[in-house]
Amino acid sequence: MHKYVYMFHEGSQTMKELLGGKGANLAEMTNMGLPVPKGFTVTTQACNDYYEQAKNLTDEMKSQILSSVEKLEKETGKNFGSEENPLLLSVRSGARASMPGMMDTILNLGLNDEVAISLSQKTSERFVYDSYRRLIQMYSDVVKGVSKDNYERYLDNYKKQKEYASDLDLTAEDLKILTVEFKKIYQSLVHEQFPTDVKTQLLEAVKAVFESWNNERAIYYRKLNHIPDSWGTAVNVQEMVYGNMGENSGTGVAFTRNPATGENILYGEYLMNAQGEDVVAGVRTPQNIEKLKEKMPFIYTEFHKYAKMLESHYRDMQDMEFTIENGKLYMLQTRSGKRTTLAAIKIAVDMVSEGLISKEEALLRVDPNDLNNLLHKTFDLTALQSAKEIAHGLAASPGAASGSIYFHAKEAIKAHQNGEKVILVRLETSPEDIEGMNHSEGVLTVRGGMTSHAAVVARGMGVCCITGCSDLEIDEEKKTLTTKEGHVYHEKDAISLDGSTGIVYDGSLEKTEPNISGEFATFMNWADEIRHLQVRVNADNKHDAEVALKFGAEGIGLCRTEHMFFQTDRILHFRKMILATSPEERSHYLDEIMPYQKEDFKALFEVMSPRAVVIRLLDPPLHEFLPKEEKEKKELAKELHISLEQLEARIDALKEFNPMMGHRGCRLAITYPEIAIMQTKAIISAAIEVAKENKQVHPEIMVPLVGDEQELLYLKKIITETISKLFAEENMTIPYKIGTMIELPRACVEADKIAKEAEFFSFGTNDLTQMTYGFSRDDAGKFLTDYYAKHIFTQDPFARVDESGVGSLMQIAIKKAKQVRPDIELGVCGEHGGEEHSIAFFHKIGLDYVSCSPYRVPVARLAAAKAVIEEQKQL
Amino acid sequence: MHKYVYMFHEGSQTMKELLGGKGANLAEMTNMGLPVPKGFTVTTQACNDYYEQAKNLTDEMKSQILSSVEKLEKETGKNFGSEENPLLLSVRSGARASMPGMMDTILNLGLNDEVAISLSQKTSERFVYDSYRRLIQMYSDVVKGVSKDNYERYLDNYKKQKEYASDLDLTAEDLKILTVEFKKIYQSLVHEQFPTDVKTQLLEAVKAVFESWNNERAIYYRKLNHIPDSWGTAVNVQEMVYGNMGENSGTGVAFTRNPATGENILYGEYLMNAQGEDVVAGVRTPQNIEKLKEKMPFIYTEFHKYAKMLESHYRDMQDMEFTIENGKLYMLQTRSGKRTTLAAIKIAVDMVSEGLISKEEALLRVDPNDLNNLLHKTFDLTALQSAKEIAHGLAASPGAASGSIYFHAKEAIKAHQNGEKVILVRLETSPEDIEGMNHSEGVLTVRGGMTSHAAVVARGMGVCCITGCSDLEIDEEKKTLTTKEGHVYHEKDAISLDGSTGIVYDGSLEKTEPNISGEFATFMNWADEIRHLQVRVNADNKHDAEVALKFGAEGIGLCRTEHMFFQTDRILHFRKMILATSPEERSHYLDEIMPYQKEDFKALFEVMSPRAVVIRLLDPPLHEFLPKEEKEKKELAKELHISLEQLEARIDALKEFNPMMGHRGCRLAITYPEIAIMQTKAIISAAIEVAKENKQVHPEIMVPLVGDEQELLYLKKIITETISKLFAEENMTIPYKIGTMIELPRACVEADKIAKEAEFFSFGTNDLTQMTYGFSRDDAGKFLTDYYAKHIFTQDPFARVDESGVGSLMQIAIKKAKQVRPDIELGVCGEHGGEEHSIAFFHKIGLDYVSCSPYRVPVARLAAAKAVIEEQKQL
Repeated sequence: MHKYVYMFHEGSQTMKELLGGKGANLAEMTNMGLPVPKGFTVTTQACNDYYEQAKNLTDEMKSQILSSVEKLEKETGKNFGSEENPLLLSVRSGARASMPGMMDTILNLGLNDEVAISLSQKTSERFVYDSYRRLIQMYSDVVKGVSKDNYERYLDNYKKQKEYASDLDLTAEDLKILTVEFKKIYQSLVHEQFPTDVKTQLLEAVKAVFESWNNERAIYYRKLNHIPDSWGTAVNVQEMVYGNMGENSGTGVAFTRNPATGENILYGEYLMNAQGEDVVAGVRTPQNIEKLKEKMPFIYTEFHKYAKMLESHYRDMQDMEFTIENGKLYMLQTRSGKRTTLAAIKIAVDMVSEGLISKEEALLRVDPNDLNNLLHKTFDLTALQSAKEIAHGLAASPGAASGSIYFHAKEAIKAHQNGEKVILVRLETSPEDIEGMNHSEGVLTVRGGMTSHAAVVARGMGVCCITGCSDLEIDEEKKTLTTKEGHVYHEKDAISLDGSTGIVYDGSLEKTEPNISGEFATFMNWADEIRHLQVRVNADNKHDAEVALKFGAEGIGLCRTEHMFFQTDRILHFRKMILATSPEERSHYLDEIMPYQKEDFKALFEVMSPRAVVIRLLDPPLHEFLPKEEKEKKELAKELHISLEQLEARIDALKEFNPMMGHRGCRLAITYPEIAIMQTKAIISAAIEVAKENKQVHPEIMVPLVGDEQELLYLKKIITETISKLFAEENMTIPYKIGTMIELPRACVEADKIAKEAEFFSFGTNDLTQMTYGFSRDDAGKFLTDYYAKHIFTQDPFARVDESGVGSLMQIAIKKAKQVRPDIELGVCGEHGGEEHSIAFFHKIGLDYVSCSPYRVPVARLAAAKAVIEEQKQL
Repeated sequence: MHKYVYMFHEGSQTMKELLGGKGANLAEMTNMGLPVPKGFTVTTQACNDYYEQAKNLTDEMKSQILSSVEKLEKETGKNFGSEENPLLLSVRSGARASMPGMMDTILNLGLNDEVAISLSQKTSERFVYDSYRRLIQMYSDVVKGVSKDNYERYLDNYKKQKEYASDLDLTAEDLKILTVEFKKIYQSLVHEQFPTDVKTQLLEAVKAVFESWNNERAIYYRKLNHIPDSWGTAVNVQEMVYGNMGENSGTGVAFTRNPATGENILYGEYLMNAQGEDVVAGVRTPQNIEKLKEKMPFIYTEFHKYAKMLESHYRDMQDMEFTIENGKLYMLQTRSGKRTTLAAIKIAVDMVSEGLISKEEALLRVDPNDLNNLLHKTFDLTALQSAKEIAHGLAASPGAASGSIYFHAKEAIKAHQNGEKVILVRLETSPEDIEGMNHSEGVLTVRGGMTSHAAVVARGMGVCCITGCSDLEIDEEKKTLTTKEGHVYHEKDAISLDGSTGIVYDGSLEKTEPNISGEFATFMNWADEIRHLQVRVNADNKHDAEVALKFGAEGIGLCRTEHMFFQTDRILHFRKMILATSPEERSHYLDEIMPYQKEDFKALFEVMSPRAVVIRLLDPPLHEFLPKEEKEKKELAKELHISLEQLEARIDALKEFNPMMGHRGCRLAITYPEIAIMQTKAIISAAIEVAKENKQVHPEIMVPLVGDEQELLYLKKIITETISKLFAEENMTIPYKIGTMIELPRACVEADKIAKEAEFFSFGTNDLTQMTYGFSRDDAGKFLTDYYAKHIFTQDPFARVDESGVGSLMQIAIKKAKQVRPDIELGVCGEHGGEEHSIAFFHKIGLDYVSCSPYRVPVARLAAAKAVIEEQKQL
């Protein structure tokens, strides 16, 4: 025999699994001696057994519930269903995890015609019949599935006939009539009488709450939040208390601290002579909780005391609900309060100095991902309230951006140079768009996922970005953007993007600056004290490096040299280099690019000194750099003194069936060693110049896409020979390393051979994920949606590293590499380097550092600290 | 002090590394008591030391060589450089591996003016001065690098002036004059006198042979044949014997058996009064060796005896050179003789029955790859002699084909249906061309490698194919094929392809039928007795299955169901299915295809009964099936009742950035389960019908491109449910298996999880190689050429499995799979399944079977046997 029901005083905070969050907290408050309306909880076990028993409340359940009602009658001195001092009950759901508003509630159970008459004498007729008609409505809706609206419509007509402006005009007599009419409606629609037996009312209500565990929106919410179906919901049955019993009654919600700023003051609002719903409905404007101090000083003091007690007890900021019934305070709910990231950090830091929690606990209190919100501008909250949403896409890169639409990178650049704020809108972006993206406030693409080109590049730049916004139709040629509703936006029309939510708004919206308080620094320092993983940044230019340094980056883990070629003053040389027909011609064009590269590297070394700077040799397929538009092609043909046809033939010859698996990475430098030589020269001569300024430099030259040790060996020879020559010319040396990216499955299983030649490994988990799964991130979108829908995949392997597959290849690589080079430096520079769970995994498998985009650096620092704390907890 | 020189009687057959092949065999023959002209060998060690000593013959080398000459003088009773009974020497290269014609030879060393006069008295003036002038020419060419042509020009002029028809008209007097003139030419071009010191002649000649180890053609040959540069060449110094000393002299070459047919009779030719060069030059027609029996019965008998001795001694068919000098027989060379595959098999089988070698040795004597030559028609040898080569490409699929050129698959089909023999010529082929390929005698592509689409499909079909024929320029629109020389071929012009050599010929050539003798069967049976690996075939239709069965296939290891969709009567339904907008519509079109698929499967089951038939569910990206030409698109749009624009939009939506990493494999059936259901129905209902004919069936349903066990689990459920329904309807069951291809790196590391759901694994090493290396076979051509040139790769990983990388992933998979399912069936169905070295590896790692294209089946059977024998040898 299971114990299906616990009186509140039988439960505790630790029994969340069985009693649900709400039930456990009501029990805890009861045991703390707080004034909680008395009641009991029907367990989640009962819910699960209910489903096991083909959706039947077993006799055992019924008998335990009813005998608990008897206990409740004793505790309250009231009687359920009796005219003598009648007991009214609320029935509320309460699962292990909070699922706000997803399941059902019924109030005022225990009313019937007799009870109503008797209760009217003790309280007021108007109050009782208002409660009664509400019960009928709610019961019909929740238990019988006949919508409330059927009653509301009647009510509306009634008010119209009476020419009432609002519900407040309804008299006791009106409500009595309505109660009678509602019972008639109930009977005609439900085909039975409204139950006068209060036990039936109660048991049916409990059953209905169990049922609501599997309503559509609850199922959807669980899926979204990874809540197992097997948990079930508990049901809390509790004596009703009323805040609407007159001017001596009221109801409110409050936080123990300010949830927006974290300030340590009681924060909340209340309404006198009102029920909880009234606060939510917004019919009357609630008062600041401070007013209560004046109005009901004793109540305020009592509540303030309870708030402090609860916060100390739970060691976290609490979100509480209370009701005052005829001058008596009741605590209805407490739970950890939701808060802004700013508040979360302030509260965590304050609580450490208050001695309430440890630094480690403080760090665990903040979701690393949320740090992002602190680092970007956000839309003004009031501006948002009146803003018009026009589409939803993927929240690819956080931030808030407003500006004029441009459909082509070049025009975006021009507009920006004319002082306009620009939103670049594309079907999808390609490397050609990079400069344009850099000149834009925000980027919006119709296609592509969270790791599409646009998303990756935008995050790297810290530019706000929404991708995969398939609500919109784009015509890049006609320069139109059409919403689902058919509204057409043209070039120069204003829109706004919220990169943290993926929402696109009409027009320009006001923004507020990020506010990084002193607590942020304190908090991040604690993370730094604890973490083992170093955090580097993926940065290709001085600006990114500076931003990252501000955010605490400890070096550059990935400088993608190709981004340096896209600037308008360089791309032409670079294109000529690509289309060169001899090594000599190629070297000639490379020589023209070298000074630019060298200056770029100098800037990075200067900013980052004395930290390490990992520079990757040219990586992407060369055809990515070639012009696509007729006009540009013509220009290039002219420069090369060939015909347009000849140019197109050369471009065609570079086309690939599967660019991701083509002529890229180290394969480029193997076919064109001139590129590696030029880049090495630029890196090392830049480093020498900075070293001459008495700044420490630590360049690390990284060879991408190595699959065989011979590839690395071949290029290493070229690189070291080039370096030796430079050292000899300058008559000085600087420390440097040569290493490789590990991004091919073959590199993992050949890691022992490759490690012989590599001083460091940097796992490129983007590519490694692609090759291990055998799907490209650009193409996977087409079927991954189905994979999620069919529960084949539960997470995006490009967003969170696949520990089982990709991870085990990484572990093979690490083991093999350490066998031949125990002190090899190990890092990761894929998108996963900035993702919390992935970082925990990288910590576990013994990497030395993660590298991520500038705006992810604080996230990574905190995640790395969390990884250590969680690990210690497990030991 | 090294021993740099070995007299022939000091060496033996086992000393090939030190003495080279020729030297070791000369030593061996000497020790067997055969009449070998006396001599000695300067070792390969000397050659290597020569290069170590900055290309100098050390004093030690010189002294050892000269003292060996003294020994030779004693052995022969002749004197080197003396007028008294002069000794003349030949100096010949001889590396460890045969490198025919790649290095240099000098004959007649030891002649100077004095020696010539004295020798003329003993022999004839004409003979001596002819030898002398040849020495000058050869010495100039080989030692001094001044070409022979300078002398030949003079000789030609001389003959013209004298109005001589041939060299035979030259008198002794003429040759004396020419010797004087040649010495003058030598002096004017070499700027020194022709050396009269015979020791100088000898030492310089030895040095020149060492030098020739590194001439361009030798280096190229070594690269081609994977001969290490470090081996060096030995030098054989040997007493000259002359077959041109009169009618009692002669020279010849002979094989102990017929190298074309293997027949056990002495086979060869000889010329009386001639030198070896004369046989080669073809001025006079040599006699069949049988004639010698009449002409010089004693010599013939003696030679015949030696031939038998040598064959027994070496236990292999020998290729011998001999000279008769004044009625005395000299053996100049013996080595294992090259032979046709037909002969190789007959000889091996005969030698086993003669008790000369074991079955295992017999199997090792035949290169598995060569079996291919037996299975295809070949061009008539005489036809080939007068054939005009127009281009060279890659020998992608063996066979000989002649026919009319067609540039488009459709026209090829039409022409074939009109009874024409067709050669399909394309820039490259795509799946759309498959039916056209099947109707062609041969396929020629300008692009693509050994594993390009054309190559793989053609091998599968057993259709002759040449790929990557970049000598030719194609214009598919104008329908022209242009050779390097500018000759233009048009539609319907005839060409011929030799798929075994990669040569394209002008016009149609005569062919001969393959001749598979009884020995072939005997030989293959021995292979079957010994091998452990089962050999299955990759076959998609009845014809292939029948061919494979004839060749000994033990089941179908891979039936690619997509090939079945390309036929004209099906492709339209299939296209409609692809472009369907709802599951219902899709199912409808699939239903139209099902009867065809079922009939196909029935035919396969009937042919293969009672063997296993592995059928892979639809694998390639759907867009591969869609029309590319305007006309076809219009037809399809009409069928679908949509506009051409709408059709094009739908087709565009299916386009992928990296089709190889896109929506393919099991991902198709996951998004469109209707496809898996239809295919399962077709397979199982076909199997049931065949089972009802009392034929055993063993269908194995294979899910492609699985990377996660959830994918397999999802589809397995659909497949088994479909099967259960069919079994219930028919009230009978048949045995079947469900398994998966292992072709993604992730599948390898997750093999333990996947094996829980899979009854068999079939390694798809084509894709596994692509994903492990991260390059696609269609794109890798662009850089792999550089990889080979730069010695980064020494072999094509698509042709021969990469044991280290791909292989270790396979081993991980096997280990993990066997942990959870010890009896799991393991096979391989990639191109590697028909490649000798790969098969040896698959044997080693414990696979159960390999599957390959029909014409590779015998190759695989032999290779599998060799793997066992080699393994036993190593133990």
